Amino acid sequence: MTTAEDREALAAALPDSNLITDPDVLAALSADDAEWAEAGSPLAALRATSTQEVRAAVRACAALRVPVVTRGAGTGLSGGANATDGCLVLDLSRMNRILEIDEDNLLAVVQPGVVNNDLKAAVAERGLWYPPDPASAPWSTIGGNVATNAGGLCCLKYGVTRDYVLGLEAVMGGPAGEYGTAVRVGRRTTKGVSGYDLTGLLVGSEGTLGVLTEITVRLRPALREPPHTVVGAFDSLVAAGEAVALCTRRGLRPAALELLDRACVEAVENWKHLGIEAGAAALLLARVDDPGQAGEKEAAAVARAFDEAGALWAERSTDEVEAEALFEVRRLAYPALERLGPVLTEDVCVPRSAVPRMLARTEEIGKRHGVRVATIAHAGDGNLHPLLITPPGDDAARRAAQAAFEELLTEAVALGGTVTGEHGVGLLKRGGMRAELGPEICAVQRALKDTLDPLGLFNPGKAV
Amino acid sequence: MTTAEDREALAAALPDSNLITDPDVLAALSADDAEWAEAGSPLAALRATSTQEVRAAVRACAALRVPVVTRGAGTGLSGGANATDGCLVLDLSRMNRILEIDEDNLLAVVQPGVVNNDLKAAVAERGLWYPPDPASAPWSTIGGNVATNAGGLCCLKYGVTRDYVLGLEAVMGGPAGEYGTAVRVGRRTTKGVSGYDLTGLLVGSEGTLGVLTEITVRLRPALREPPHTVVGAFDSLVAAGEAVALCTRRGLRPAALELLDRACVEAVENWKHLGIEAGAAALLLARVDDPGQAGEKEAAAVARAFDEAGALWAERSTDEVEAEALFEVRRLAYPALERLGPVLTEDVCVPRSAVPRMLARTEEIGKRHGVRVATIAHAGDGNLHPLLITPPGDDAARRAAQAAFEELLTEAVALGGTVTGEHGVGLLKRGGMRAELGPEICAVQRALKDTLDPLGLFNPGKAV
Repeated sequence: MTTAEDREALAAALPDSNLITDPDVLAALSADDAEWAEAGSPLAALRATSTQEVRAAVRACAALRVPVVTRGAGTGLSGGANATDGCLVLDLSRMNRILEIDEDNLLAVVQPGVVNNDLKAAVAERGLWYPPDPASAPWSTIGGNVATNAGGLCCLKYGVTRDYVLGLEAVMGGPAGEYGTAVRVGRRTTKGVSGYDLTGLLVGSEGTLGVLTEITVRLRPALREPPHTVVGAFDSLVAAGEAVALCTRRGLRPAALELLDRACVEAVENWKHLGIEAGAAALLLARVDDPGQAGEKEAAAVARAFDEAGALWAERSTDEVEAEALFEVRRLAYPALERLGPVLTEDVCVPRSAVPRMLARTEEIGKRHGVRVATIAHAGDGNLHPLLITPPGDDAARRAAQAAFEELLTEAVALGGTVTGEHGVGLLKRGGMRAELGPEICAVQRALKDTLDPLGLFNPGKAV
Repeated sequence: MTTAEDREALAAALPDSNLITDPDVLAALSADDAEWAEAGSPLAALRATSTQEVRAAVRACAALRVPVVTRGAGTGLSGGANATDGCLVLDLSRMNRILEIDEDNLLAVVQPGVVNNDLKAAVAERGLWYPPDPASAPWSTIGGNVATNAGGLCCLKYGVTRDYVLGLEAVMGGPAGEYGTAVRVGRRTTKGVSGYDLTGLLVGSEGTLGVLTEITVRLRPALREPPHTVVGAFDSLVAAGEAVALCTRRGLRPAALELLDRACVEAVENWKHLGIEAGAAALLLARVDDPGQAGEKEAAAVARAFDEAGALWAERSTDEVEAEALFEVRRLAYPALERLGPVLTEDVCVPRSAVPRMLARTEEIGKRHGVRVATIAHAGDGNLHPLLITPPGDDAARRAAQAAFEELLTEAVALGGTVTGEHGVGLLKRGGMRAELGPEICAVQRALKDTLDPLGLFNPGKAV
């Protein structure tokens, strides 16, 4: 069939849905924020508003063998939500209702399109807290966070998205029944071991096993006291890495321990003029949130570790506005760098003791390939984001960046790490994943995909 | 073939292994601690000492189509490690070496037969802590803990076994390669999203997908201060349940919040004479481990919540010996009750707000069926263990207990709970699991099992 005929067939099968075919809108819905990943041309897009509508769409797509690519806010950094040719883009950003906040059981039930910070704000009104905080939290959706098992700043102490997902409603096919069947996995209880952990399998599966239409998340009581912020400045990335390793070795447990290099600080400062001095080669930002005197002691211990690792200076930030500005720099680093040219984002994660070595290798690899690298890192987790920036339109620079990118992946795996700590495999890390996992594990992954999605309908070509 | 011929064939295929065929030893290795679950007659048993030996055994069993039932210490409470007729029992309790403790990265690598408390003791010497603490911790193995995703007391604050498993080595078959292939899943990093979460899928799979031969666990820094213990006595189970619900609602975060009814306290006291008074209908034991003044405040808040929920009395235990004795009562409750007759163990988990209701229904159901019920509970998690005790040899009492058992499962599911919070499905909860999950999810579970173990070799008839 021609594209026009396919579109007509899809529209005929979905009489109650408003299919989008406008080329400009389709183009906008065809890619996430991974500027380097290729994106195909979708047949159409659908802004679903209910599980029923998702079910009907999946059923129709299965009948017509049209692939389904699900997306939320499109803030992904690996191309996991990029369209494939001839697919239906299923945009869930309008399924954005918080269905329930259960204060007695510390959980919330949400639709997938709820924005992370909106959930945080809603539960905060009840004295509760949803910790996962990817830097994209002001824009990214819970559905996307779950699909990629998003990390963030505070996962150092509070865990990643997976640790907060209790249950899911998913529209699946295969053994679950006819494509378009909605199933519920997981639970509302704090513990449960009834059957294989399908919730855990769906978290991080990047839309390749079905469409998530409802999410039950665990909440925590809100923190009762403002956190302490500790800042350290270092004359090299490696020295900052040594400070991180020392904090881990000493059993310190900051809620966040972030690294920013000079290029990041400068890019934000040039854009937002927050008044942060970009003198040092690297800054470490630690947030300590233990209550009372224990927090005071922990913050002091972090500052001491910074000093002993050779910080130019390290101090507690006593000014909340200043502390907030520092973390704002962290959050704005990525969009600030994007202003300078297409960014190729690394997301390697190495054992924490290997952070200094990985940072040294990053500098060396960047220099050798002549690539401009700015590094931000969830350093306390060993999760590093070297950002490779190329001048727009410079093909030679782009090739050099691609070579550096692959070399960084290889290095991370050699150090006992992974090619993706929190962004997902998507399109950009498929080769890296194969190298990391090896053929046996890739075969197991593929077998699971084929079992749960025998038609290969859900987000084909991604992740596995 | 006859059993003798099968045995000979297996022995011939495993010339380097010492196959056990002595009937008394086989009988001892044929069942776990779930006294009510049926156990078959194994062909032979093997006390494996290395991954290589496990690989050879699995390869031989696949060739001969002999099922493989893996076991550790045999402390399971659902029959998950019970032999099936004609199987090879693979006992991993001699694979009990701690291979590595990595202080810089807060992890340990262990063989599956390492006893939980032995790991705790070894890492404590380095100032580290492995939190998961099933009541069986003095005897149960990390391999068994992982296979059942064991819970325990401190998971209220620190999470269950799954939350500590970073990576696994497993001997598998199917898409991983020829049966007997050893694969590595997971990682040594704190975060990672490279491919589907196979580690999470294997945790809690009860030996049905392969044999775990090596486990990498996350550790935490040891706590620096002794915890506070708060004890409350209540004139009814339901009143104690209300106190639990109030603690949750107020955002209090004890590390453990345990409930013991009078029957449990009496059984332990009659056995061990620890000097604990069994006057009240129910005791709540809370352990608070926030450091410094924050801990003092939290402990006081827990005591206040107990009082306000109608405790007969509630007090901070200032005597460490007494506090330890109280938690010892908790740990000894199950073996103490086992002395009185075969115990049928419930393991329901309900949303925490439903704890009072579930406790009331438990009493009512026990009375109606004329069954002696003693209840211990990880009450703060909503995970309740009503223990149904029958006089040995009394068939009518046994039938009544079975009826009460099934009714408790139904009630837990009706309250939004699960039939098993931490013990696993094994043999005892298969019917309950089907009722809880429904046919679509059971079909998905079954499809995963068939994909990863196409010969149905691993622990057949259990869990799925």
